[in-house]
Amino acid sequence: MEGILSMKCITLTVDGIVPYIGGIVLVRRKNEPFKGHYALPGGIVEYGETVEEAVIREVHEETGLECEVKRLVGVYSDPERDPRGHFVSVCFLMDVRGGELRAGSDADDVKVFKLGELPPLAFDHSRMLKDAEVMLSGILSKVQEHNDLSGR
Amino acid sequence: MEGILSMKCITLTVDGIVPYIGGIVLVRRKNEPFKGHYALPGGIVEYGETVEEAVIREVHEETGLECEVKRLVGVYSDPERDPRGHFVSVCFLMDVRGGELRAGSDADDVKVFKLGELPPLAFDHSRMLKDAEVMLSGILSKVQEHNDLSGR
Repeated sequence: MEGILSMKCITLTVDGIVPYIGGIVLVRRKNEPFKGHYALPGGIVEYGETVEEAVIREVHEETGLECEVKRLVGVYSDPERDPRGHFVSVCFLMDVRGGELRAGSDADDVKVFKLGELPPLAFDHSRMLKDAEVMLSGILSKVQEHNDLSGR
Repeated sequence: MEGILSMKCITLTVDGIVPYIGGIVLVRRKNEPFKGHYALPGGIVEYGETVEEAVIREVHEETGLECEVKRLVGVYSDPERDPRGHFVSVCFLMDVRGGELRAGSDADDVKVFKLGELPPLAFDHSRMLKDAEVMLSGILSKVQEHNDLSGR
């Protein structure tokens, strides 16, 4: 990592907004920066991997959920958004297809939060969720309706 | 560049779709890969620069036009899309605000093409234009209308 930064390479990352049981899946960070804060699941794109493959892999590793990419939310490239250097993140809205919710090795907790009850988030992840708000409102109300109907 | 590639860094680039006088601005590439092919104006994002700043700068350098970013079109990350290595491109739809059309140092020609009369394009730039088709149809018909009304 230090080698890469000293080359002044931009690091490309991905983050996933994962709607699940009426809320959004967040992971609590085990490591700095923002240790102890909740964040969207995500991580660094590997060389040779598409951004879609990367976000599916990272969400699975960090949350146990198997997802498909539903839609591109945005590209976040402010050079100050990550204290480790210039990290550019591509954020996607995801669609859960299977798996079971459990914290991966980089997180000490994984939890579903309702949109109105979010904790303070790491990085610019609040902005990502804000940018996805319109896409999310339809999805979360549908999930809620489904849950009401099925009596969960 | 070779140093960066041997580190297996993903290279982050930007491309701009620039609607202008009823068509799209394309530049003819002076260098490999795709030397002699037309391409969307664009280039490598510099460390410390946002993707929006990068596409505004690259479009200005390559076409002479001063633009604002109108909308994100997509992120193109197939590792095979550029023969030089893994180059991920963020593509934006641009809005011309000033400047004068002229070829920059990396291009030997800059030209406006109607959407139905595009030459074979470098990289996956045809796909980017295809992905922007719906956004473009409204814009280009408005430009056409304006030109018809003003008798140009």
